[in-house]
Amino acid sequence: MSAQAATPDYSQGAAYVGGQYVPIAEARIPITDWGFLRSDATYDVVTVWDGAFFRLDAHLERFMASCARFRLDPGLPPAGIAEVLAQCVRLSGLRAAYVEMIVTRGQPPWGSRDPRQAVNQFHAFAVPYVWIANEAQRARGLHLAVSSVQRIPSTSVDARAKNYHWNDLTMGLLGALDGGADTVVLSDGAGHVVEGPGFNLFCVNAQGTLVTPAEGVLEGITRRTVIEMAAALGLPLQVRALPAAELRGAREVFLSSSGGGVLPVTWVDGAPVGDGAVGPVTRQLVDTYWAWHRDPRLATPVDYGPDAGFE
Amino acid sequence: MSAQAATPDYSQGAAYVGGQYVPIAEARIPITDWGFLRSDATYDVVTVWDGAFFRLDAHLERFMASCARFRLDPGLPPAGIAEVLAQCVRLSGLRAAYVEMIVTRGQPPWGSRDPRQAVNQFHAFAVPYVWIANEAQRARGLHLAVSSVQRIPSTSVDARAKNYHWNDLTMGLLGALDGGADTVVLSDGAGHVVEGPGFNLFCVNAQGTLVTPAEGVLEGITRRTVIEMAAALGLPLQVRALPAAELRGAREVFLSSSGGGVLPVTWVDGAPVGDGAVGPVTRQLVDTYWAWHRDPRLATPVDYGPDAGFE
Repeated sequence: MSAQAATPDYSQGAAYVGGQYVPIAEARIPITDWGFLRSDATYDVVTVWDGAFFRLDAHLERFMASCARFRLDPGLPPAGIAEVLAQCVRLSGLRAAYVEMIVTRGQPPWGSRDPRQAVNQFHAFAVPYVWIANEAQRARGLHLAVSSVQRIPSTSVDARAKNYHWNDLTMGLLGALDGGADTVVLSDGAGHVVEGPGFNLFCVNAQGTLVTPAEGVLEGITRRTVIEMAAALGLPLQVRALPAAELRGAREVFLSSSGGGVLPVTWVDGAPVGDGAVGPVTRQLVDTYWAWHRDPRLATPVDYGPDAGFE
Repeated sequence: MSAQAATPDYSQGAAYVGGQYVPIAEARIPITDWGFLRSDATYDVVTVWDGAFFRLDAHLERFMASCARFRLDPGLPPAGIAEVLAQCVRLSGLRAAYVEMIVTRGQPPWGSRDPRQAVNQFHAFAVPYVWIANEAQRARGLHLAVSSVQRIPSTSVDARAKNYHWNDLTMGLLGALDGGADTVVLSDGAGHVVEGPGFNLFCVNAQGTLVTPAEGVLEGITRRTVIEMAAALGLPLQVRALPAAELRGAREVFLSSSGGGVLPVTWVDGAPVGDGAVGPVTRQLVDTYWAWHRDPRLATPVDYGPDAGFE
């Protein structure tokens, strides 16, 4: 370790692991934690924009619900978690950050294979804001591929609880990248598209109605924000199964993600969406998404004060 | 760190992480490795019994195949991996060990979401031999529950490549433990049983034929060993879909796992299998399994010599 204990460098991000704050580059978890060896974990990601958490309460609420579904205990109440997240952001000094909270199963005593005997572990980190799409992709719109890989069904893993079971998403993404697309959406095995790596999917269909898949997807907070924005803007919206054919025939397509908000898609499977340009509904939702970040009902300012001490 | 650099304590196990050998209690992986954050990893487990690896070549061959399926590169040829595994065992001094080899995706440069830009990481560790069932359970036979949780289908994640996508197994196991069973087998959604946490499943059906599921399961090396033992012993065996009803009506049931070999099951869903005692075919296969550990064609002795240096 070249960093001196007295002057840790948090500029690339700060983490809370094993009950201590460390620079992100030094943040490690035990290789024997079932959070790794069995992907027995849940997590959530909240962003900081312009020095304020966006929809922190909604993310904390979903995180606690995910923990309950997987019988994982963060060992902290939501307010305690919020304080750890704020401290990670404060240490990093980041005004725009991607902030992840995690509970892992931990490890039961050697010889036991009973998850109930494990001591669950809480971890968190704040790193620079992550964009699902880079600036050029956001300007021209993403090129999306529909994968034949099926998203893990909810009969196997509860999609409503955020989890790291991403092999299907990763293999689908590799196929899409190889084929020249920017990202991928998986299907459900019955001809419907569901979600992609880190995002939900919307389209403005041929009839001008917004549609987003109902089942087999994470109930994204940004997805919820889009649904609420549509209501506020008077845009018709349906939450239901979305056939891949309807997506391909849509006027507009976009992704929703904490990693960038509303992200336009202008090509699907090598063909342009509409005229291949970012559409007016998408633009309106992008603008509204960022405008809502200034709404004090949704933004929780981070206290970056120099005197902020450790919890 | 209380251990001095000159006298690390490997007695609880030894690991190879980040290119270095460390005591298992100090073995950690970066929290930002996609092997954790996306469960983007593959692994294999080989055992050491009586100072020798059992079927090392088969495990290395499967590991390399798993890596290829998930497009992960261990960065070492099989012989190099074998040397790292042997060194972990050597450092630990364990004569009976559970030895795991792992490749994680690593992490692409910040801002990239392209798995192809990540530098894959190889890890390994040796810990004391792990038994799926404790001594009392092995003597009386395990109590098994059939879960309604469905194993993640191969249309989502290739079951032939060993992976850490265990949430379905974990949630099924928790339900089984709550209900008083010892372990669990998941189903495929079409009335067939498939596999459980860390094991394949066999039965001797009402007609006296050994049956093990064909699809949606890891192609376990111990499963393969059972199939080969059945051939050597002249026992009829079918590899095909196994209806849960056939399992419940079987004369004998057992598990196969690197964590204990052939493990008897004497109760299924609260009812005895046959007369509820460990059956003769199971006993014969248990005995044969351990006898085969002395076959020089299957056993690779570990060199524990005091002069063994680091690679």
